[in-house]
Amino acid sequence: MQAIKAGLIGFGTVGSGVFRVLRRNLEEISRRAGRPIEISIVAVRRVDVAHRQIGTTCHITDDAFEVVRHPEVEIVIELIGGHEQAYQLALEAINNGKHLVTANKAMLAIYGDEIFRAAQSQGVMVGFEAAVAGGIPIIKALREGLSANHIEWVAGIINGTTNFILSKMRDKGLPFAEVLKEAQRLGYAETDPTFDVEGVDAAHKATLIASIAFGIPINFAAAYVEGISSLDAIDINYAEQLGYRIKLLGIARKKKNGVELRVHPTLIPEKRLLANVEGAMNAVLVKADAVGPTLYYGMGAGSEPTASAVIADMVDVTRMATADPENRVPHLAFQPDQLHELPILPIGECESAYYLRLCVADQPGVLASIAQIFAAQYISIGAVLQREPHSGENETDLVLLTHTCKEASVDSAIAEIGQLQSVRGKVVRLRMEDLS
Amino acid sequence: MQAIKAGLIGFGTVGSGVFRVLRRNLEEISRRAGRPIEISIVAVRRVDVAHRQIGTTCHITDDAFEVVRHPEVEIVIELIGGHEQAYQLALEAINNGKHLVTANKAMLAIYGDEIFRAAQSQGVMVGFEAAVAGGIPIIKALREGLSANHIEWVAGIINGTTNFILSKMRDKGLPFAEVLKEAQRLGYAETDPTFDVEGVDAAHKATLIASIAFGIPINFAAAYVEGISSLDAIDINYAEQLGYRIKLLGIARKKKNGVELRVHPTLIPEKRLLANVEGAMNAVLVKADAVGPTLYYGMGAGSEPTASAVIADMVDVTRMATADPENRVPHLAFQPDQLHELPILPIGECESAYYLRLCVADQPGVLASIAQIFAAQYISIGAVLQREPHSGENETDLVLLTHTCKEASVDSAIAEIGQLQSVRGKVVRLRMEDLS
Repeated sequence: MQAIKAGLIGFGTVGSGVFRVLRRNLEEISRRAGRPIEISIVAVRRVDVAHRQIGTTCHITDDAFEVVRHPEVEIVIELIGGHEQAYQLALEAINNGKHLVTANKAMLAIYGDEIFRAAQSQGVMVGFEAAVAGGIPIIKALREGLSANHIEWVAGIINGTTNFILSKMRDKGLPFAEVLKEAQRLGYAETDPTFDVEGVDAAHKATLIASIAFGIPINFAAAYVEGISSLDAIDINYAEQLGYRIKLLGIARKKKNGVELRVHPTLIPEKRLLANVEGAMNAVLVKADAVGPTLYYGMGAGSEPTASAVIADMVDVTRMATADPENRVPHLAFQPDQLHELPILPIGECESAYYLRLCVADQPGVLASIAQIFAAQYISIGAVLQREPHSGENETDLVLLTHTCKEASVDSAIAEIGQLQSVRGKVVRLRMEDLS
Repeated sequence: MQAIKAGLIGFGTVGSGVFRVLRRNLEEISRRAGRPIEISIVAVRRVDVAHRQIGTTCHITDDAFEVVRHPEVEIVIELIGGHEQAYQLALEAINNGKHLVTANKAMLAIYGDEIFRAAQSQGVMVGFEAAVAGGIPIIKALREGLSANHIEWVAGIINGTTNFILSKMRDKGLPFAEVLKEAQRLGYAETDPTFDVEGVDAAHKATLIASIAFGIPINFAAAYVEGISSLDAIDINYAEQLGYRIKLLGIARKKKNGVELRVHPTLIPEKRLLANVEGAMNAVLVKADAVGPTLYYGMGAGSEPTASAVIADMVDVTRMATADPENRVPHLAFQPDQLHELPILPIGECESAYYLRLCVADQPGVLASIAQIFAAQYISIGAVLQREPHSGENETDLVLLTHTCKEASVDSAIAEIGQLQSVRGKVVRLRMEDLS
């Protein structure tokens, strides 16, 4: 059968992985897809360098727009970084009647609604499995595998860089800055690590997950985002003493009055599988009404894991290329006219349990006055850990775990506690999720 | 849009779950599927009992063949046990041009090739996500999510009953027979538990997994099957001392000369996520060349988890109902004319590491003579655990862990060891997989 022709934009880590895996597994992939998939044009930054890697089997250009305009190309694979140029390319590809496969979560978190609308009106598909959790087929699981369910919440370790750093901080008891340097040396973190360590990348992915899980438009701007750069190694240690691990989670939870969409360091009971996802691995835990909890685990980044997801989308597109558009799986799981607006709740309205660390004077009555403030806010305390003051010190760390309550209440309590004379410095506050 | 009409055969645990979830989540499911899914006829054993549960919204019959012959029914949901009658019903449904959704692994492991051939020639779909690992969308992951990959092996905890029993045996240090009784009391094991505890159910599922992973015809007869009924609690204990957990695994591994397809109790390093899957939960670990390891975890049985998978298939069928048959996902992942025959290796040709427990005389030279036998078979020993003999005893347990070798070699070594005067009774042998 005649090959389906694809055009590849970008030949970096992921692009070269797509090229390599497609060539290596061509026979097996064709046996699955029903016809061969061929990359007939590649847009790269430096044509001379690419020639050595790609060979002469396909046309190489340094003009990405040549790919999206090429008459032979049926699928455009967009694998460049950033969102502005990628968006222009994606839109032009779609408007030229080409299917699009992309790993670009930033672009989709910002322009997704517009891109999917354009694809819908052109009758083309947009595959973006690679945009969330790399090689783990989590988009497919949410969109198709769990389609019977009312999805209650999704919580995921969806950024490998931060999970690598947190695992190392815990393992070695080292501070963030030191581990970040090691991660950069090993290639797990970028030279400018901001997007990863500040939680922006995870928030892009969580935003897409929320849309697919709950059938709501994409709303990255409303996501609450907090990274790990200010996380203190001592809190990882205290959390561990209390039976918890700290992970950067992306959380999307459906509540009666709206959707919680938030990314932040989170204490998880150490017995949960999610707490035991180490290094650069990713995992997504989904809680749904019929199936209960399901978990999906694998490599969230890297050349070939991401290529695996890109090519899976290419196979899906190939299998479905001639099917009626209305019979394809909807981009955001729900039919496009069936997306419902739901408010994304401000973080103060979100509910969580909390880990609080206070530096307190070693004197009688301190715990009583703090406990009273919590009681007045109707916040119950689940556990307390107080370190013996070192000899000569007249202050010590007091760690409290609260039960679930509204974030605004905890913030009020913290503000009041900050007024106490016996409390020194800033109160450290981390969120805690039971995930049961 | 007009509803798609389904007919349900069987209203037991799963059937009633399908009915309940479909009714509860109808609005959300329709928003995903693009049109409502309606069960218009249900075949049950006792019509009077069913009337109370089902109400009067759909026709109830005690003749299953009425469902597969009903002109309005587009999807037949087959949820009865056993394989003979189910097979007759499935075949007639297909030959009447109806799509089939089934949770019946026994039927598919035995008659799958024939059923898929019939479906192919009739241009209808057969959904069987619920047949493997209940609510976990593992069929979809293997068939679509990982389609870029050369799959190397799959190892799964795919029977909840045995995992529940093994977890309890370890937790409480209780013998198999006692825990089985508790499992029966709690509803985790059937009155006749043979199919579960002897590994047959897991082998049905592993057989389907092997076909989908490697693109080979279904060959249940060639699977090696060993259950947990003769597992001794002491081996669970020794395994734990050595850093391992024992799980009943279904393993499908592609080798150069064929496919390993086997179900048996298996030692797994306790650090692996799979080793920490407890109770009735299921999990499947897939090792593929591009994506690396991915793991899928969730409830492998039960009313609503299984219903989740059944309904997901119904949504897939609904979405794809009017698409060209050649553009649908192939039943066994590979296009029907692209299945390749590969031999299933006899167990003697399979490779594994081994746990061996011997009762040996407490006298000098025993270990040396045993070690010599292994050396002669080129089997290297990875670890040794020897219990101090209790006072008054003149024999003790010796536990050995081998490195990976061919099963036939270990069997030869065991036969020779059995001849040693210093070795008492039967050598206990368990397989061990590193899963890395």
